[in-house]
This record gives sequence, structure tokens and C-alpha cells, in this order.
Amino acid sequence: MNDTVNVGIVGATGYTALELMKLLLRHPHVDIARITSRDESRPHLSEVHSTLRDRLNLNFEPLDVGSFADGLDYAFCCLPHAASAAVVGQLLDSGLKVIDFSADYRLNDVASFEHWYKVEHPDAERVGKVAYGIPELFRSDIRSASLVANPGCFPSSAIIPLAPLFKNGLVKSSPLIVDSKTGISGAGRKANLKFHYPECNESITAYGVGTHRHMPEIDQILNRFCGCETEAVFTPHLTPMDRGILSTIYLQNADGRTDDELMDCLNEFYRDEPFVRVTSQIPATKDVTGTNFCDMTVKSCRGMTIIVSALDNMVKGASGAAVQNLNAMHGFDETLGLM
Amino acid sequence: MNDTVNVGIVGATGYTALELMKLLLRHPHVDIARITSRDESRPHLSEVHSTLRDRLNLNFEPLDVGSFADGLDYAFCCLPHAASAAVVGQLLDSGLKVIDFSADYRLNDVASFEHWYKVEHPDAERVGKVAYGIPELFRSDIRSASLVANPGCFPSSAIIPLAPLFKNGLVKSSPLIVDSKTGISGAGRKANLKFHYPECNESITAYGVGTHRHMPEIDQILNRFCGCETEAVFTPHLTPMDRGILSTIYLQNADGRTDDELMDCLNEFYRDEPFVRVTSQIPATKDVTGTNFCDMTVKSCRGMTIIVSALDNMVKGASGAAVQNLNAMHGFDETLGLM
Amino acid sequence: MNDTVNVGIVGATGYTALELMKLLLRHPHVDIARITSRDESRPHLSEVHSTLRDRLNLNFEPLDVGSFADGLDYAFCCLPHAASAAVVGQLLDSGLKVIDFSADYRLNDVASFEHWYKVEHPDAERVGKVAYGIPELFRSDIRSASLVANPGCFPSSAIIPLAPLFKNGLVKSSPLIVDSKTGISGAGRKANLKFHYPECNESITAYGVGTHRHMPEIDQILNRFCGCETEAVFTPHLTPMDRGILSTIYLQNADGRTDDELMDCLNEFYRDEPFVRVTSQIPATKDVTGTNFCDMTVKSCRGMTIIVSALDNMVKGASGAAVQNLNAMHGFDETLGLM
Amino acid sequence: MNDTVNVGIVGATGYTALELMKLLLRHPHVDIARITSRDESRPHLSEVHSTLRDRLNLNFEPLDVGSFADGLDYAFCCLPHAASAAVVGQLLDSGLKVIDFSADYRLNDVASFEHWYKVEHPDAERVGKVAYGIPELFRSDIRSASLVANPGCFPSSAIIPLAPLFKNGLVKSSPLIVDSKTGISGAGRKANLKFHYPECNESITAYGVGTHRHMPEIDQILNRFCGCETEAVFTPHLTPMDRGILSTIYLQNADGRTDDELMDCLNEFYRDEPFVRVTSQIPATKDVTGTNFCDMTVKSCRGMTIIVSALDNMVKGASGAAVQNLNAMHGFDETLGLM
Repeated sequence: MNDTVNVGIVGATGYTALELMKLLLRHPHVDIARITSRDESRPHLSEVHSTLRDRLNLNFEPLDVGSFADGLDYAFCCLPHAASAAVVGQLLDSGLKVIDFSADYRLNDVASFEHWYKVEHPDAERVGKVAYGIPELFRSDIRSASLVANPGCFPSSAIIPLAPLFKNGLVKSSPLIVDSKTGISGAGRKANLKFHYPECNESITAYGVGTHRHMPEIDQILNRFCGCETEAVFTPHLTPMDRGILSTIYLQNADGRTDDELMDCLNEFYRDEPFVRVTSQIPATKDVTGTNFCDMTVKSCRGMTIIVSALDNMVKGASGAAVQNLNAMHGFDETLGLM
Repeated sequence: MNDTVNVGIVGATGYTALELMKLLLRHPHVDIARITSRDESRPHLSEVHSTLRDRLNLNFEPLDVGSFADGLDYAFCCLPHAASAAVVGQLLDSGLKVIDFSADYRLNDVASFEHWYKVEHPDAERVGKVAYGIPELFRSDIRSASLVANPGCFPSSAIIPLAPLFKNGLVKSSPLIVDSKTGISGAGRKANLKFHYPECNESITAYGVGTHRHMPEIDQILNRFCGCETEAVFTPHLTPMDRGILSTIYLQNADGRTDDELMDCLNEFYRDEPFVRVTSQIPATKDVTGTNFCDMTVKSCRGMTIIVSALDNMVKGASGAAVQNLNAMHGFDETLGLM
Repeated sequence: MNDTVNVGIVGATGYTALELMKLLLRHPHVDIARITSRDESRPHLSEVHSTLRDRLNLNFEPLDVGSFADGLDYAFCCLPHAASAAVVGQLLDSGLKVIDFSADYRLNDVASFEHWYKVEHPDAERVGKVAYGIPELFRSDIRSASLVANPGCFPSSAIIPLAPLFKNGLVKSSPLIVDSKTGISGAGRKANLKFHYPECNESITAYGVGTHRHMPEIDQILNRFCGCETEAVFTPHLTPMDRGILSTIYLQNADGRTDDELMDCLNEFYRDEPFVRVTSQIPATKDVTGTNFCDMTVKSCRGMTIIVSALDNMVKGASGAAVQNLNAMHGFDETLGLM
Repeated sequence: MNDTVNVGIVGATGYTALELMKLLLRHPHVDIARITSRDESRPHLSEVHSTLRDRLNLNFEPLDVGSFADGLDYAFCCLPHAASAAVVGQLLDSGLKVIDFSADYRLNDVASFEHWYKVEHPDAERVGKVAYGIPELFRSDIRSASLVANPGCFPSSAIIPLAPLFKNGLVKSSPLIVDSKTGISGAGRKANLKFHYPECNESITAYGVGTHRHMPEIDQILNRFCGCETEAVFTPHLTPMDRGILSTIYLQNADGRTDDELMDCLNEFYRDEPFVRVTSQIPATKDVTGTNFCDMTVKSCRGMTIIVSALDNMVKGASGAAVQNLNAMHGFDETLGLM
């Protein structure tokens, strides 16, 4: 079981790939064997991610789907949506297990995907049959999967606290308001005036109000796990910090349920989970920075139940979840590389 | 009318007093004549607020209520709650007009104050009879007042967009969720491990969840202006930036009302107000940093109406509002010192 | 004298132009009449600089040098180097007085310019004959000038403290080390991966080590004012903040000179200058943020004299200096719009 | 060799202790057995360092020097200067090996210590006989030591690049200017108005100009290793970021030496060192954040040699160095827990 697995990373110039490499370098049973980018000049990894200098000696190579699987066991696919589903099928066919960071396989049906992402799905037949990568909720699916859809960072911060509460009928499905605050690494590693330092430093704003694609993901995954029917109203906010997501979630408890019952439910559900911490204090993103934890608490106010959850968008919200999924898929202890 | 007014500032070592002095230094008809602090050493202003060196040549003096009014027309009172109401009466009696930054005169009744602030009110008989310092809503009260309660920073960010909508029956009173994000200057100028740079930098968290004293202020002032009965669920968040408040407000419109109708209502109501900007873009706090503007927009999502408003907690949320109130009280153009 | 002057801004989409407009909006005797950009779509100012919404009602227009001067008295030219000198001559010929933000007219000779800027100078004959825009040093030149070269932000932070010391023979010319730290607004308003928030937040680095173009500017302007011969070793550092420059300057005092003598010299030289503050405390950039002040102090250590100076790169380092220059050129009180 | 060692941490409420615990939790052969603080209430670790919740189950205990060694092999002493030397002797006597984070054992002689630290040394006889904890320079001393003086964060950033250059006679000893920029975690975890978020955010300043205690440390350790006689002029700057030190060092090369010779010297000297990276690019602190690396480069300018070095003040500047020292003392691979 504790043999070494060889992994490749498709689309490794971004921040999630960088974080993934940092985590995998600490994993005792993983070797990073191959990284790709569209840059034909085949730069050395350290020219793009200078913090990895002398830690990983690889050059970027263009993706050749035909030969990419040679010598590899797993692929992490860090391509944009639609671009990812255009290659995942071939990666699977060539014998790899795949963890896909894009949104391509997260939703339950192609129609939803095409409605929210405004693009034809390149691999429609797999949609709806792919394990969703929150091991705390879908562990057995993940363990037997050859393809795992790594979850969205915002949905993780909402679904992890909400799933046990809906599953146990402790909260009402409407209204469901998810007000999330994210660090700017979530915007990716690409020059854009919106994320130019003097534009977003010392400022907070909302974006994608009423239109963000993570709304159907929250609804459908909660439905998949709990059978509940929600219409999450989700508003993300761009916060002047590198990393971290804090979600403040407003809903109503089912009649007569107390905060204590909600806290007990979360504590019970996550008792043996190494990466979920239910706390009486209100979490701050700094409590989870650089870790794979999701922290959460519940408080009532004037008839509303308020959940505050925190995770690191780069770790539990992306690359840490991916490593946890790899561990689950391969039968490793899920905490390897993550503590 | 355009004579010079002489003002004194009681409790001038904090950030709101500093901002107030910066604004008043630009006011063509105001002289800052006197500043107080409890520090018996009577330091020079520039020893406490080094940015004001060579701009205002005053020493702090201890507050002597008996003689403070000599030569003054107005007092700005920047003391903590309860401490303020302990001196405001005497300041008024000595002939000053007073703008009070504390919460002491904002609520409608003493019982509410004592319930939320856990202290006996030192000047109970004035409570409920004081002008609330949002000139856009209570201008005629302010113009004839000798005492104005300067509003809370968070309540301003909620009340300004909500008042016209409730007044015109365009929104429902429940649920009303106000999710606010504030810069750290709101915590005041006092060493505290919570606001120690490495504790709150690169982190966002909620605080006062379910218990914040600005909830009754939002409800009562909306009620005073519109007659509506709300129970605002208000959650403030500590955001890693110096200044700015962004409030994301969730409620439901009255049946059949469109976003356009809500936007039209706001545009119409604030058409002639120099400090309210209704925009189609989502505001960012940086749009209003250092200004007395309150920016706002409205968007619908899945049956909820989402309002996003932005103001600078130090200006429109505190000292700018105070200067605007002074201008209104004295019959100056309200924009003096503020553009 | 206190008539209103009409000004136009050439190249008004950047941060220095934004700051300039904010300052001029407070100036009692200036009207901003015209702003240009290369964007042919002629957007409204508020679409580019949303903070100016409802404060200045102008559309950008393409620069038509032939007609730009109509109705104007002064032009502020905020174009990149070489682009600026390509139009300044025509602006002058059409009767405008010009304050140029670029480096084109700062150096003493064309050869230096072409060596350091690697481009042919488009208006070589004016070079060396233009007033350098530090009124504290070159006031009489500026008062009679039709063209003023607005100084570089880093050179200002070094030249202002150094000039009186060299002039009075209190310091030696070699070594002269200027270690400067700047906020990121200095990089301009243009998307670039280097200034992408997650790249430069929470990080400090040096750049242009040994090659920065502000070195000859420091040397030549000191020489112009004092006759000294220096070879400044200048290293700028990109600091994670919006604005501000702190320069730490290392040199040796002339034999036997004490700190007190150096401080006395600075105090004496700048006694009547409204925008220079010589302090016994070590200045911080926050002391001068949003102001036109340059703060400075001097301390000795182990045979070296250390000067620490602070200014706001957007104000005294750029747009505030430009307004001060306008005031000097037009005979206004130099502090108009700047206090 | 790869048995588990049990360690205790004396004074574990601060940031260096927190970082140390995070690192040791990843170390395969270390158990953290005991942590102390002066807080008599014996709080749980997670009440002080919430990020460690569920990762380390310990309560703080008051330091009882008599029994502290029971079951332990090593003590990390994170007390303030003078407080540390008051207990280190007893810890050694009780059989522990000690890594001391304070300045108490770094200098060569008691007189220097007492001059710079203004306090009597409580353990004078050990001073000057203690290994200085930069393994790259003093590895054999450290391997045989029972007490190691963990180096100062600023001195490390200067000594590591300078030592090989002085050792090989490539640079002159005077002038030596070290201009350092540090994140605010270096100020420790203690409320103080100077480090209150709104005071130091968006600002940079110098401190301890001409008086900082790290000057004699740089001189004496360079002398100990190279025999050179320097008088470092060292100026630290408080930079608005959590962590990281960038040092820009100015000196002169020995006659005729080129940058290439200096770079070759560094490359050669550090060729086999896992934690020193000599680069042609200018390092940024972000390249080393969260790592034990010290990055550096050399450039010439106008007769001066400029070295830029970067390290994480919490890791290579403090706790990472301490773990590396533990590894060296115990015969572990030095990279354990640090990659």
C-alpha cells in the first residue's frame, strides 16, 4: 500500500498547482514526475514558481495526451473548465486515475453545466457519474473512483457545515444565504487590472452578485448528499488578503431546534474526521491558513441560524482536498502530506 | 452665515477625532480651538497624531466642563458610551451645540439602551428626543437641533439604502440580513491583542455574532423614519484593511417589485443629495475611501433582493457625517470641508 | 491673481492623474476642463476612476494637439517618457504652460537621457533649460517658467533632505547610498503579473538594482543646486502598501559635523517651507499619506550619517508637487489645494 | 539514531514558539512533550494558538526548573533576554540539551552583552563558549554542543551571505551597511500601540536607527568565523506584512573583484547546503515565506557591491534554524521537518 505513486500535473503554472506541489513534496509516498503548460519554451519550474527552486527539478512540457500517462499513476488536471473535460477522457483511457480541479464534472447534469458555464460540455456522458471530492461526505465513492471532481472552494465552505444539518433535518431549506469572503489567490495567477495590487488592496467588494456558478454546485451537492432542495443565494466578496475563505451562512433551524442541537449534530458527524473542527469560538481564516482544516461554528440570532465556516481556499478549498482525495483513492491515510 | 465657528473636541486622541480634525482643517469657516484628553501631561497634538504636525498647533487639555465652552460654538464629543452622556448635558447647558459620536442618544428609549449597553444611562431624560445625524433622512430635525446623535458606522451603511425602500413599501420587513465588513480602524486606537497586526492581517473573521449593539439602532431608526418593524440580523466582519465598510444586505422585495423599481426609488430619493451615489456597478470600499460618499446598488437573486452599500467608516460612518451635521446645524452648505 | 485657471490633463487614466484630479477638485481657483486618453471610445471619467463619480463630469477625449489648448491655461502632461516630449513642444507653442510628469526634461543633457532611457529624445533642444519642479529649491526658476519638469518620486525623497546639507558643505559626496521603499501605486495602473495582488502582497523585494534611472536624476539635480559631484547608489524596493516612499540615506558628514549641526541646517533651510517637516522622531510613510509633506530626520551611527525621509509618492512625489508647481507658476499661494 | 526525541518548549505563547510547534509537528522523530508559560491558569494550547486545535493536545504549565527535564531530551528556550540565561544553566545541569532563542549567548563577551542589553548577565561564565546556531558556518561546534545560541533573525540575513565573502577576502570591511526590512511578526505577540493594525498597516518606517542590538552580533559572528573587523551600520525597517526579512547590504569588493567572482564564491561555499540558494534573480521575501531557505544575490553599482538576501524571520530567522540546530545536534538529517 505504501509504495510510491507517480503523479503528473496538467496545467501547472497556476496557484493551485503551486500549492499542490508544495503539499506533494511533503507527501512520503508521492513523486511528482511530470508537469505541463502550454508554454512551448519548456521553462524550468523554478522560472515560474521561484519558491520551488532547488526543491523540484522539472521542466514544463506541453501536454501530449498520447504519452502523458507513461510511468504515471495519477493525473491532477488544473485546466480551466471545458479545457479540462476535453482531455480527461483520454487521460482515463490511458490508464490514469484523475483528480480534476475544474468545474466540469461537479454538477449532476449536462444541462445545468451548459446553462451556468455557457459552453458545450466536451465529455457529456460522464457528467453526473463522477465522485465529488469531499471525502467527509462521499468517501466510499471516492475510494472506488477513477475520476474525482475536486470541489469548488466556496461550495466546500458551505456544504461541509450544511450537509450534516440538512441530513438530520435540523434546518429549513429556504432561505439559504451564503455570504463568502475570499482571498485574492482565488482569482488565479494571471495579470488583470481588477486584481492589480493598488486596485484591490485596502478594499473589499462583492462580485458575481446573483450570477455566480457556485450556486448550482452548492444546491446539487447538498441534494446529492441529503436529498434537500435548496436555492442558495450566494455572494462572494474579494477580500484584501492572499488566501482564506470565510463563509457566513444564514438560514432557519427546523422548529424548536437549538444551537446546541446543531452543534451536537456537527460534532457527532465530524467526530472522527481529521480535517473538520467544530469550535465554540468564531473561526478566523488565519486559524486555517496553510492547513487542510475546515473550522465552523453555529450561533442563533433573532430567529436566524448563523453558521460561520473558514478554510484555506488553496488547501481544503483546492489542492489539500485534491491530496486528501488522492490519499482516499489510493488507500493511503488521508492525512499524508497534509499535517 | 459664513462667519467662523469655533469648535472644541472632547476626547481627541482617537481615530475619529483625528479624521475630524483633518476634515475641519479643510473647512473654510471652522476653527479648531480646543481639544481634550484624559492625559494629564497635556501633550502637544503632534505627539499623539504625528500626521498633524505643523498643521494644528494645540495641546491636549483635560476636560474642564465648567470652562470648556468659553469662546466655543460647537463641541464634538468623542467619548465612549455612557462617558459621553455624563458630560453632554453640561456642555449644552453652557451654551454649546453638541455633536455626539457615542451611542448614548441614538436609540429611541432608555430601556433599549440599558438592555444593549448594560449600563445605566447618565442622561435618561434626553433619550428619544435627539436628532439622529443622517441629514439625508432627518435634515429638518438636525437643522433645529442643539444636540445631534452622530450615527453608528454600520447602521449608516444599512439605513441609508434601506430607508427609501421601506418608506415606499418596496421591500418586506422580514427577513432582514445585514452582513457587514469593516476595516480595522473601527476598533479604535488602543492596543489590544485582537487588533495586533500579525493577529488580524491576512485574516477575516466575524465578531459580535448575534449580539452586536448596532442591531437595535438599525431597527429603531428605520422605524423612526419609515414606521417599519424590522428585526435586523446583523453580522460585522473584521477585514484586513484600514478603513471602509461594505454591507451586503439580503431581504425580499414586496410582491412583484423589480430591481429597476428599487433602483428608481433610490435614484429618485437621493437625486439631490451630494453624498449618496446610486450606481449600476457593485461598489467597492475603495471607491469611497477618504470621502463622505455612500455608494449603493441593488440586484436580485433567486427571490432575494441584495443591496450592496459602501462607505468610509471614518468619514460618512463617523467624522464626515459629523461635519455634515455641523454644516446642517449651522446653515452652511453641507458639502463644506467634505469635497 | 485669484482668477480661475483652466487646466487640461494629457493622459488621465493613470494613478498620478487620478490623484491630480482629486487635489485640483479642492483647489479654489482651478477648473479641470479637459482630459485625454488614447482610448477612442471616449469613456466617461467615472467609468475609469469610479471614485470620481459625480465629482467631475468629463469624458476622456483623444489628444488633438492642434486644438487642445483652446480655453486652457495649463496642461499637465502625464504621458510616458518620450511620448511626453513628443507633444510638449506643441502644447507650449499653442500658448499653454506645461507641467510635465515624465522624465523627459529632468536631466541636464540629452546624452544622459538617451543613455539611461535608451530612446532618442524627441525634443532635444529644450533639455537642460527646464525648471525642475521642487519649489523649495528652484522657486524662482519655476515662477518664471512656461515648462516645469515635475520631479521623480524617489529623487524628491533624496534631494530634499540632501540639498541643504551639500549646499552647506556638511556632508561628503561619496559614498552616497539611497535605499528607498515604495508603495505599489508607483508601478502605475496597468495589469502586470509582477504587480498582481497575490504576487506582491506580503512580500518585499528590490528591483532595478544598480540600473535605476533615478540615479542620474539625483546626481544632476544635486549638482545643479549645490555644485556637488555625487554618484548615488540607489536601490528601490517594492513594499506591500498602496502609497508612500521611505528613503534611508547613508553618507558621511564632513569632518567633525554633529547630528545637531545637520538638523539645524535642515531646520534653518526649511523654516518657512510649508511642506517640509524636520522632526526628531523617525518618520513613517503613514505620517505623510495623502499629504504634500516631506518629513525627515538625521541620526549618526558608527561614523555614518543616516537620513530617513518620507513622502507620499502620489502627492509630494508626483501630483501634489505638480499642484504646488502650478501654484508657484501662477503666483498662487503654494498651499492652495494641498492642505 | 532515528529514535524519537522528546522536547519541551519554555515560553511557548509567542510567535516563534508557535512556528516551532508547527515545524516540529511535521518532524518524524520529535515529540513535543511539554510547554510552559507564566500564565498560572494553565490554559490549553488551543486557547492561545487556535490554529493548533486538534493538532497538539497540551496544556501550558508554569516552568518548574527542577522537574522540567523529566522525560525530556531537549529544551527550546523562548524567553526574553536575561530571563533565558537565568534558567538555561539549570536546564543544562538537569541533563537537557538546550537551544536558546534569546540573545543571551550570542555575543563573544559579557561586556558587550551588558553594554548593548543594559542588564547584568545572569550566567556570565558561559558567554563566549556557546555554539552559534548557523549550521552552515558552525556545524561542528553545533554537533558537539549541549547549548546552542539560536541566531538573531537580522544577523542571519547578513551573516550568511557575508561570511564566505569575508572568509575569502573578496570584500572590504568598511563601510558595511545593512538595510533590513522585516515583517511585523518580528515584534512578538504582545499588544502594543506601535503594532496596532491601523498604526502600522500601509506604512513603512525605520526603528532603532543607530542603536539596534543586532549590530554587535553581526560584527562578532563575522569576526568569529572570518577574523574580519567590521562595524556594521544596521537599520531595520518595519514593513506591513506578517513575515519575511529582506536585507540590502552595501559594501565594497576587494580591488578588482567582479560580481561573478563574488557569485562564484557564494555558489561554491553553499553548493551542498540544502537551505541556501544563490540566485541570479533578486530574491523577494515571498520566495522564502514558510520555508527555511535563505536566498541571495549580488550586483555591483557605481563601485559598491550590493547584496540582497531574503529569509523568513519566523523560520530560517528563528524556529526553522532551531529545528535545523536540533537536527545537527542529534545527528538527524538537517532537513527533517523543514522541507
